[in-house]
Amino acid sequence: MEQKITQFNNYKKIMHALSHLNGVLYFDAATSAPKGSYISRATTTEYLSGEMFSLLTSPETIDLVNYLLENNDKIDKQTHRECVLVKRELDKLLKMPKEEFVEYQVLLNESSSIWEKAKKTNDYNLFKPYLKKIIEFNIKMAAYIDPKKQPYDALLGQFEYGFSTKDYDPYFKSMQESLVPTILAINEAGQPDSSFLDLSYPIYKQRELSDRVMALLGIDREYCNISESEHPFTTNFSKYDVRITTHYHENMMASSLYSVIHEGGHAIYELNTADEYQYGPLASGTSLGLHESQSRFYENIIGRSREFMTLLLPILKELFPNEFENVNEDMLYRALNIAKPSLIRTEADELTYSMHVLIRYELEKQLIAGTLSVDDAAQAWKDMYKSYLGVNVPDDTTGILQDSHWAGGAFGYFPTYSIGSAYSSQIKNAIEKEFSVNEAIQSGNISKITKWLNENIHKHGSMYDPKEILQLSCKEDFIPQYYFDYLNNKFKALYNL
Amino acid sequence: MEQKITQFNNYKKIMHALSHLNGVLYFDAATSAPKGSYISRATTTEYLSGEMFSLLTSPETIDLVNYLLENNDKIDKQTHRECVLVKRELDKLLKMPKEEFVEYQVLLNESSSIWEKAKKTNDYNLFKPYLKKIIEFNIKMAAYIDPKKQPYDALLGQFEYGFSTKDYDPYFKSMQESLVPTILAINEAGQPDSSFLDLSYPIYKQRELSDRVMALLGIDREYCNISESEHPFTTNFSKYDVRITTHYHENMMASSLYSVIHEGGHAIYELNTADEYQYGPLASGTSLGLHESQSRFYENIIGRSREFMTLLLPILKELFPNEFENVNEDMLYRALNIAKPSLIRTEADELTYSMHVLIRYELEKQLIAGTLSVDDAAQAWKDMYKSYLGVNVPDDTTGILQDSHWAGGAFGYFPTYSIGSAYSSQIKNAIEKEFSVNEAIQSGNISKITKWLNENIHKHGSMYDPKEILQLSCKEDFIPQYYFDYLNNKFKALYNL
Repeated sequence: MEQKITQFNNYKKIMHALSHLNGVLYFDAATSAPKGSYISRATTTEYLSGEMFSLLTSPETIDLVNYLLENNDKIDKQTHRECVLVKRELDKLLKMPKEEFVEYQVLLNESSSIWEKAKKTNDYNLFKPYLKKIIEFNIKMAAYIDPKKQPYDALLGQFEYGFSTKDYDPYFKSMQESLVPTILAINEAGQPDSSFLDLSYPIYKQRELSDRVMALLGIDREYCNISESEHPFTTNFSKYDVRITTHYHENMMASSLYSVIHEGGHAIYELNTADEYQYGPLASGTSLGLHESQSRFYENIIGRSREFMTLLLPILKELFPNEFENVNEDMLYRALNIAKPSLIRTEADELTYSMHVLIRYELEKQLIAGTLSVDDAAQAWKDMYKSYLGVNVPDDTTGILQDSHWAGGAFGYFPTYSIGSAYSSQIKNAIEKEFSVNEAIQSGNISKITKWLNENIHKHGSMYDPKEILQLSCKEDFIPQYYFDYLNNKFKALYNL
Repeated sequence: MEQKITQFNNYKKIMHALSHLNGVLYFDAATSAPKGSYISRATTTEYLSGEMFSLLTSPETIDLVNYLLENNDKIDKQTHRECVLVKRELDKLLKMPKEEFVEYQVLLNESSSIWEKAKKTNDYNLFKPYLKKIIEFNIKMAAYIDPKKQPYDALLGQFEYGFSTKDYDPYFKSMQESLVPTILAINEAGQPDSSFLDLSYPIYKQRELSDRVMALLGIDREYCNISESEHPFTTNFSKYDVRITTHYHENMMASSLYSVIHEGGHAIYELNTADEYQYGPLASGTSLGLHESQSRFYENIIGRSREFMTLLLPILKELFPNEFENVNEDMLYRALNIAKPSLIRTEADELTYSMHVLIRYELEKQLIAGTLSVDDAAQAWKDMYKSYLGVNVPDDTTGILQDSHWAGGAFGYFPTYSIGSAYSSQIKNAIEKEFSVNEAIQSGNISKITKWLNENIHKHGSMYDPKEILQLSCKEDFIPQYYFDYLNNKFKALYNL
């Protein structure tokens, strides 16, 4: 047994090195690499994926993991969980015939560039044949993942383990009932002044703002740097090496500011996983939804709270004395919390964001079930935006073609964006049994909140599945109502509804 | 044979992927990675070096390369040269017993950090035992490389193939005779005004200057980006992916400006190697000396020429209108060409730079021959700086401890820094048989010069050894006199000597 454990540790070490290299290559491509470098990166990426695939699916690895799982009374809890996670990966990969896997990768590569072109030229017809094939593949894949489940349920579970339409259906139904009336009412209400956010803010000053905000969040720069990329993201190679990125626009200062806070939340999760999990499959946040719960916690529950303005405004006044001369905390709070139904998910405010996700969930469910055809999906998109958000979608570029996810083969991914926000409200409620989150913010004591999250969520890494983490941290099952109440209370007060 | 060629192409592909990954990891560490990330990078670096070592020294590779070289009448010229280069690497690695190789790597790791500490605390005694061991290892290594050669000759050939003390002794002797009188005379001469270069130049404006200068040099940004690191360097993963870095100091604008031009020269070499050499051992500049010849060509022969001021000054006036309001081309030319014997090699001017190298060459030769002891070397350093440069060295931090090379095990490396400059003067002379370099600069036609260098040097990559490249491009052997004449003419005119 000792020899098997050594063998497994060796597997973890090599897999970590390969993932690390893969991650650095991706990060470099997104931040520093010259545009044309993709030409020569292809062969290296191919080599690396090949090595990772071979290592994971080698007979030695399969035998080893099976052996350890069969003798799980003789191994420690950590090793057992690591084997469980490797086995989940393996099961998915091994069931798909290799030719099909390769065929699918080729399709995805092609469809991503076709999608880009279709979006640019507002030509949904161009993308339709690819979308049809991707859906067919996803239905086939769902059967490989779990032939006993409804296809969409199998797909959903890939992205948020343990979640299916049984969780999401009631979640989105109550969301619709709770939020749509508020959203439609806000559509009729007047908006506060936010013109000071639209002024021109030099990028080199915005870079300074990013550093100040990271310091405010208590992020240890020794292990976390900030870079620039087209779209903001966070990546980690271990808890000692976490990177966030942002994108600066001269006339959209708040965009980068809140990207930094959002990605900072992801980073804080990764920076605080337990030491003993490093260089193995547990050394990272446990699910997309829980990761989003942390980024949204820092972005919205902390970063867009009235109390945070007390911390943020002095920094803004120091860096931009002229632009913020006549701005007070209340004005800043209102301007940063403007809710307004809009076309584009990634630019949506806190209140309307999840409705964009709801629409995608409904469409995905029907597309996978075959009750909606790809041909009719663009119109269905427009109809839903009208009825849920009161918004007229003028074209497919700002409609069904706006997101890259489907072109990349990800069906069942979108809901994690929303459920993360719902988790964050539930987590806030759990913290409040011990102390007031908003008082902690007001007094500049964000580290008190972070410490709670470290202890109850971050340190566990991937040791537990999302529903288990909710039980451990909140001592209850997933309860979405906290989220809808939080949003209704906040935005009804903001808009005097 | 066809099968062997396929096998060799496969070897090249994997080795390229591994080197690419190694390079990206290094680049990332120097530019984007958080400081503390070294903790977790170690295991990945170890894995990668292990893979590269195993692949290169595997019995399959050895047999394959030997087979191809034995049948060299049946393989093309490119494959033959590739095998020659792989074989050179192999010969060096295979002769050293593996334990010794590992012991040496451990020593170098340790000595680098000890050197850093010794430099910081001006404590040569701390570093001495490590330097002694490193010299012993280098003498042993020299015997592995070529037991028939004098040890220092074997070491020199590692860094500039085909060069030994037979080339360097007369080179440095005539340098001393040609340059020392001029240098000592300048020590007595008055200096022009350069105070406008010492003003505070905001870093975000310096970044803009870098972009403008890269455009001026005609560098294709599609395949070459610029990043920031502690020390400027250039790296390349293929001709489609070249990176340069620089370091900005608010009060040393010219420092980054000329780093960008210098590294830009390295980049232009790499960006123009032949397409058919990519992803193999020929896809890079052929030697350190020739690489330095290109960087110095752009930095000094182009970048510090009187004619270049006509191109540079308008850009400086546009970006920094106040600071350059009263500066004319002559003033700029003189300020950027101040020659002044100094303590630190990396900050030396064009005229005195090679004297710093001469001193290191003399010391290395004696240290390896055993005619100078490590104990006496610090004083020998001071004596030489006094007699060749007229400079008093106040301590070992700015004396024998200033460079990292010896701590990193590199004996025989320094001379390539100087010989590169000498090549560049010889190359200038060769171009002038066809057209005037300075007229091309004056008329803003730098691309005419670059095209000549592309055709005669860059495109060959590592297809030929340095002496062969000189024959191909200049139609003569290495002639150092061009360099000394160039420097004496330029600086005697500048200082009215």
